[in-house]
Amino acid sequence: MPLTNTRLNPWICLKMKKTLEQYLREKSSRVDAWLNRLLPVSTQYPVSIHKAMRYSLFAGGKRIRPALSIAAFEAFGGRGERIYPAACALEMLHTFSLIHDDLPCMDNDDFRRGKPTSHKVFGEAIAVLAGDALCIHAFGILGRYAALPVVQEIGSALGTAGMIGGQVVDIESEGKKNITEKTLRFIHTRKTEAFITASLRMGAVIAGAKAKDMAIITRYGRAIGLAFQIIDDILDIVSTTEQIGKDAGSDIEKGKATYPALFGLEKSNRKARLLIAQAKKTVQPLGARGSLFKELADFIVDRIN
Amino acid sequence: MPLTNTRLNPWICLKMKKTLEQYLREKSSRVDAWLNRLLPVSTQYPVSIHKAMRYSLFAGGKRIRPALSIAAFEAFGGRGERIYPAACALEMLHTFSLIHDDLPCMDNDDFRRGKPTSHKVFGEAIAVLAGDALCIHAFGILGRYAALPVVQEIGSALGTAGMIGGQVVDIESEGKKNITEKTLRFIHTRKTEAFITASLRMGAVIAGAKAKDMAIITRYGRAIGLAFQIIDDILDIVSTTEQIGKDAGSDIEKGKATYPALFGLEKSNRKARLLIAQAKKTVQPLGARGSLFKELADFIVDRIN
Repeated sequence: MPLTNTRLNPWICLKMKKTLEQYLREKSSRVDAWLNRLLPVSTQYPVSIHKAMRYSLFAGGKRIRPALSIAAFEAFGGRGERIYPAACALEMLHTFSLIHDDLPCMDNDDFRRGKPTSHKVFGEAIAVLAGDALCIHAFGILGRYAALPVVQEIGSALGTAGMIGGQVVDIESEGKKNITEKTLRFIHTRKTEAFITASLRMGAVIAGAKAKDMAIITRYGRAIGLAFQIIDDILDIVSTTEQIGKDAGSDIEKGKATYPALFGLEKSNRKARLLIAQAKKTVQPLGARGSLFKELADFIVDRIN
Repeated sequence: MPLTNTRLNPWICLKMKKTLEQYLREKSSRVDAWLNRLLPVSTQYPVSIHKAMRYSLFAGGKRIRPALSIAAFEAFGGRGERIYPAACALEMLHTFSLIHDDLPCMDNDDFRRGKPTSHKVFGEAIAVLAGDALCIHAFGILGRYAALPVVQEIGSALGTAGMIGGQVVDIESEGKKNITEKTLRFIHTRKTEAFITASLRMGAVIAGAKAKDMAIITRYGRAIGLAFQIIDDILDIVSTTEQIGKDAGSDIEKGKATYPALFGLEKSNRKARLLIAQAKKTVQPLGARGSLFKELADFIVDRIN
């Protein structure tokens, strides 16, 4: 599909028809329908684990990772809904990480997305197992609907060189003085950026994107991924508990290593906006196909939860 | 390869050259070498998680699941070591399940394989994350070295319709009176049998086994898988802590739903031996290729830890 063919380009049509918010709402509602189809029903034996899996998965997540993978899939020529099972696997993996992060032995959080956390509702044992089950289920789905390189890449993005590694250093840095920028950067790139980038790359790979486009979307992912985490840290300070759906200010209370803690709010905000500007510049060569990515970048920095 | 060609059949050569014990020791040592290669070194940042992953993985496991997958791979014509990464992934997944099962919120065990459990050495947070990391790493390896149907099948065998489901019912049945045979069977088939069967099937699939052979190895797996769990339950009662490397008698103490608890030692023992006899009969049509499977079946019922 030629880049300049506006008749066939979904983003130009999109811009004419609906706002980003509408687009995200639509995708999120399709993701929810697919999640519902892909998960065992909550009446299936053993009931507790299926209830717990669904409880956290349908607790009002923003579906950012699936949306990014779907956007990349569509931007690089993918059509139809064959991306959805893999996109849903990303949301299951994200939810798995949140359930375990919230455990008493980890961040010990009582609220998430405005609701009591999994271990508060189902107990610690079921919370651990619900996280495990979501992780296993997600990989099973990737095995069924995706491609081997996708399974491998998601594995890398989430393992100790990625998300888990970031979480380890995050926990071990808690309450420590003299956290360096290097350590902070390690936490942020591993905890959030790797997963965000992998989500975009997964959509692009499944659509069959060219190497040149893969390079662009990877650079874009790294920039918005880091910005996303910095904004998260800022929101923890400036928002109310009601707005962000979890205990506001808990990062400071726990002595978490965050951008605002190290550089202050103003500098952190500037850094996030700089990254977003970079991200938008990165997708410039995509022409019309890049417009949704620009809007998504703005959405990430302007969000309030 | 014709079944009757003894010149090319590794099991007949094997029988002439070495015992099952030697065979298992050899495979186990190759598995360990591959595990060492497939895991990040323990000096890699962040060090704690890599140390914890290696600690539990190299704590003296019997490598039963890898051995079964390698045996099936070789019996159905697979040659060389291309099965090893996937076989190692099975051991990582098994170790992941043990680390989480031992957590204070689950079985709360202090010893495993004669050593302090992960959370006792590294703390609960790192133990949860080490389990998570082994699970993610295993799927990443399957994505790199295996085939999509394998990823999907391992996902099913370990999810809530398999291992996790069994663990959920196991925990929820603790201390309850009037556990039915149906519930007990659910726990056993899900917790152990599904994984054992999937290990054998994985080896056979990667070797390119025919549908008829897949059916045989599946029936065999179900029989030895259930026998394996019954023997585990028996050993918990009749062995010393030193022999089994974990707190002996802890099943009774916790009021676990086990075969001996429901049927007594003698009937459980009879049941296990009956299953082993069934398993050996199942592999009869494999001819000479089936002899290792028969020895493995005997090994499972005669083991002392």
